[in-house]
Amino acid sequence: MTYLYNDPVQFADECIDGFVAANSTFVRKVHGGVVRASRTPTGQVAVVIGGGSGHYPAFAGLVGPGLAHGAAMGNLFASPSAQQIYRVAKAAAGGAGVLFTYGNYAGDVLNFDQAQARLIAEGIPCRTVVVTDDISSASEPESHKRRGVAGDLAVFRAAAYAAERGDDLNAVWTLANRANEHTRSFGVAFSGCTLPGASAPLFTVPEGRMAVGMGIHGEPGISEQDLPTAHGLAELLVEGLVHARPATLDSSAGARVGVILNGLGAVKYEELFVTYGSVSTLLTAQGMEIVDPEVGELVTSFQMAGVSLTLFWLDAELEEAWKSPAYTPAYRKGLVNRQDVDRDLITIVDVVEDAILPSSAASRASGVIVLDSIRAIKNMIDTNVEELGRLDSVAGDGDHGIGMQRGASAALLAAEDAAAHEAGAGSILSKAGDAWADRAGGTSGALWGLALNAVAAEVGDVAAPTATVLASGVTAALAAIARFGKAQLGDKTMVDVLSPVAIALTESAEHGLTARDSWKSAALIAAEAADATSQLLPKIGRARPHMEKSLGSPDPGAVSLALAIDAIAAVMNSQQKVSQ
Amino acid sequence: MTYLYNDPVQFADECIDGFVAANSTFVRKVHGGVVRASRTPTGQVAVVIGGGSGHYPAFAGLVGPGLAHGAAMGNLFASPSAQQIYRVAKAAAGGAGVLFTYGNYAGDVLNFDQAQARLIAEGIPCRTVVVTDDISSASEPESHKRRGVAGDLAVFRAAAYAAERGDDLNAVWTLANRANEHTRSFGVAFSGCTLPGASAPLFTVPEGRMAVGMGIHGEPGISEQDLPTAHGLAELLVEGLVHARPATLDSSAGARVGVILNGLGAVKYEELFVTYGSVSTLLTAQGMEIVDPEVGELVTSFQMAGVSLTLFWLDAELEEAWKSPAYTPAYRKGLVNRQDVDRDLITIVDVVEDAILPSSAASRASGVIVLDSIRAIKNMIDTNVEELGRLDSVAGDGDHGIGMQRGASAALLAAEDAAAHEAGAGSILSKAGDAWADRAGGTSGALWGLALNAVAAEVGDVAAPTATVLASGVTAALAAIARFGKAQLGDKTMVDVLSPVAIALTESAEHGLTARDSWKSAALIAAEAADATSQLLPKIGRARPHMEKSLGSPDPGAVSLALAIDAIAAVMNSQQKVSQ
Repeated sequence: MTYLYNDPVQFADECIDGFVAANSTFVRKVHGGVVRASRTPTGQVAVVIGGGSGHYPAFAGLVGPGLAHGAAMGNLFASPSAQQIYRVAKAAAGGAGVLFTYGNYAGDVLNFDQAQARLIAEGIPCRTVVVTDDISSASEPESHKRRGVAGDLAVFRAAAYAAERGDDLNAVWTLANRANEHTRSFGVAFSGCTLPGASAPLFTVPEGRMAVGMGIHGEPGISEQDLPTAHGLAELLVEGLVHARPATLDSSAGARVGVILNGLGAVKYEELFVTYGSVSTLLTAQGMEIVDPEVGELVTSFQMAGVSLTLFWLDAELEEAWKSPAYTPAYRKGLVNRQDVDRDLITIVDVVEDAILPSSAASRASGVIVLDSIRAIKNMIDTNVEELGRLDSVAGDGDHGIGMQRGASAALLAAEDAAAHEAGAGSILSKAGDAWADRAGGTSGALWGLALNAVAAEVGDVAAPTATVLASGVTAALAAIARFGKAQLGDKTMVDVLSPVAIALTESAEHGLTARDSWKSAALIAAEAADATSQLLPKIGRARPHMEKSLGSPDPGAVSLALAIDAIAAVMNSQQKVSQ
Repeated sequence: MTYLYNDPVQFADECIDGFVAANSTFVRKVHGGVVRASRTPTGQVAVVIGGGSGHYPAFAGLVGPGLAHGAAMGNLFASPSAQQIYRVAKAAAGGAGVLFTYGNYAGDVLNFDQAQARLIAEGIPCRTVVVTDDISSASEPESHKRRGVAGDLAVFRAAAYAAERGDDLNAVWTLANRANEHTRSFGVAFSGCTLPGASAPLFTVPEGRMAVGMGIHGEPGISEQDLPTAHGLAELLVEGLVHARPATLDSSAGARVGVILNGLGAVKYEELFVTYGSVSTLLTAQGMEIVDPEVGELVTSFQMAGVSLTLFWLDAELEEAWKSPAYTPAYRKGLVNRQDVDRDLITIVDVVEDAILPSSAASRASGVIVLDSIRAIKNMIDTNVEELGRLDSVAGDGDHGIGMQRGASAALLAAEDAAAHEAGAGSILSKAGDAWADRAGGTSGALWGLALNAVAAEVGDVAAPTATVLASGVTAALAAIARFGKAQLGDKTMVDVLSPVAIALTESAEHGLTARDSWKSAALIAAEAADATSQLLPKIGRARPHMEKSLGSPDPGAVSLALAIDAIAAVMNSQQKVSQ
């Protein structure tokens, strides 16, 4: 269990604050994570890692010379938002682009990909190496589908090594990618873990049993058996990995291996050393030469009991990377440069909060409607939060209502703050979107942040938005959602609602309708689309939707989107100042 | 619980082996522990630490530049033997003497003191700083009685800093001692811990409760309360320590403090960081300036759930020590010298096993009797193991029989090995004593090792031992036991048996009796003394002692010693070759 916390909701944020306080000579806090205390040298690729919290020292503990330039830190076991990742990357970037590298989990991929697109759109080159070392999570031919676990360290080290010797982004990507291809991990679990304030474990393993291949968030393993001896476990892990030797290695490679015996949290150092004694003997008997083994906690899963073994088949260049110096809060090795350690020589990162861009009076006037719309959406969600949760509990984990509520509340606060600082309509939307994605969590939070930012980019802070601008904004939002959510029309998602809305808005604008009128008709179309999707919403806006579990498995995201579009229509309708 | 182990009895040894395999570039294994891989420079004081296993990274993980030169590693939660400590110190010593520093626990004090006496007897200067930082274990006026916990790190760092800058032994002692005076810790526990293979926890804390001041081996705390929030705990710990500010500090000292927030095992990093956030704020509000805080696992108690907070009130010199570089398996900081890190530059320690000294034929002939005597003792213990355990269960933990059996069996193997390598009587006794102390564990194991070595020193490897030699050997053994066991005549311990035996042997020798005859009468005296002590042994040697719980609380060590003396008398009696 988790013993020490305050408000469970604040746990991850307080963890970052405490981590930064404890490591102020190593890192600086930025919105959404941490970066090295020292500015990335001009011309050096920045390596940005990240993922959910609860895996310390992954990820914040691995920021520093020889490892990452920055880490985006999400909530417990939840991906950081695209906005968080983007801002960490912006703070870390040194002019030669950014390499993203992180473990392969759907939420992380979604958010890192969004952040990458945004960086590229701003002219900052960005490439990604997703770590896929966990052999239990997919077969060798589908190794790209594997999850990333403690092999993260091998890939991060290779990326940092290439970046720090001055490689360009493509070369950094190439070495990190090769490190991933040369790395395989195999893990087991003996217990589940319980998050702060939770009354029950997130997942469990029966006492005296071992879940072979269980993931670090409790993802199902490949088998279960009685807990073996330490030596028996070493045999299992070594044998599994020897057979998982990457097919792409030529036969001469890999006589020398980096080794990580990683504890997941509740298995203590003494146990790891007893087990490592056998691992070392067994690998040596296989003819392998072990280089700089790591035995300890590198990628944990809170207080989960379990271990994983990682083999990193080395070639000459990867061995140099593996042996190179590093100096981070949780991983230090060899001798780094004095300017990386000596506080007086460090070039401190300047963390600048985003300034509010200048705006026109017309845009600020439209901003009032934007603000009212966001408030209306928040009120709508507050009213329907239980209903949305109930709807989500049919197919999902029932947190859609709560997540939307958290996102909308944060969005409203951010929008109010921006408006108070004389932001234009576009900036208000953008700040609201960022806050929404930041606080809502989950896929829908990320998609809402994306959608609002897409609209914001079209709206801007100069002119009052026309019907045409709204149409192109919604069209852009649709494209972003479809791309990052990997959803197509007919999948019964937000796309099914937004697609006819975008078409209708475009047609309305072409026919010269005002923004208010075109949005009003769009709201009806959205209701119909959501109805078609969920078969649940006969009359949006007139009565609270009658949501019944019995009618299949509607996407709650589509429903809440339609409700939101209707709420905006109501605001527009009541406004006298709608442009045109 | 402990998940990974093989034979629980081998756990600590296998842990050392695995640790050394994982850290072969940092440390070398010696008998009883580890030393730095690099030889201690000539003229540098060697800092030797140690204690029971189960506290990683204490103690082996703290061996390296900037910290210890060597660590003696005992069994789980059990002191290393004097022999282990002695040998680690011998391997670590660099010609300028040895500073012992370790946490204040009775078993550790007993064994380190013995090792210190032996080093000094060999001409190696040795001094000791016992760490006493745990404010819950005694009041400030009796602070010398306090236990040592995570404050170990502060004291070890100061000792290493002084040693490495070239201070002589007294100066190293002075700075380490001052560090101890400037260091206070306060801890809490939320759960017990379960050792490898144990069916029940060694100690427990009720669920949802917190044992304030509980020690790292489950020593009772000062109170119990409901588990607070992380912030509430931070308040408790900070307030406790602020009030425990050392009285000896002058008022100007200590505006700057080193801080250690130490996890005991089951409390994970994220929880520690959340708690540290509050600790940092609260200390700052007290006007303290935090210098290089450490948040993590520094002195653990296996998988016990708990934390401790340590304050190290700094003066200028202690701050330099605290901030100085270090490079060990588990503690690395700043930039050490290249020759401390670069494998090619390291001057490797030569680990030499003790050679068998040359011996005379006469001494080897006596060695046969020594060997037979040790075998007789072993057989006597095997026969009485349950009885001795039962006797111990009255006043102790019932493991006296098992401990004696382990010690005697190991002693016999070592003696046989020595005899097979042509050792003389003295060396056979010495090897037997070392093995006994090594394997028996507990206080009586240490005392037996001490006694056998004291006799061995008198017997030597040249002449056959006379009655006079035996008398002076036993007298020396008595003195050693009394001194290190801190027992006096009348305390009903081994001293009560050995004291009249030593007198009788001395008188017999003065009256010209043979060794055999003088020992024979000594055995009767021993039986009487043990009888007087335990009131349980009417006729040793003729019938198995009739041991009854009902007659009070005899010392099982006194009983087994008398039985052993009787067993030796029987061997001597049956020998034709007894010298004079």
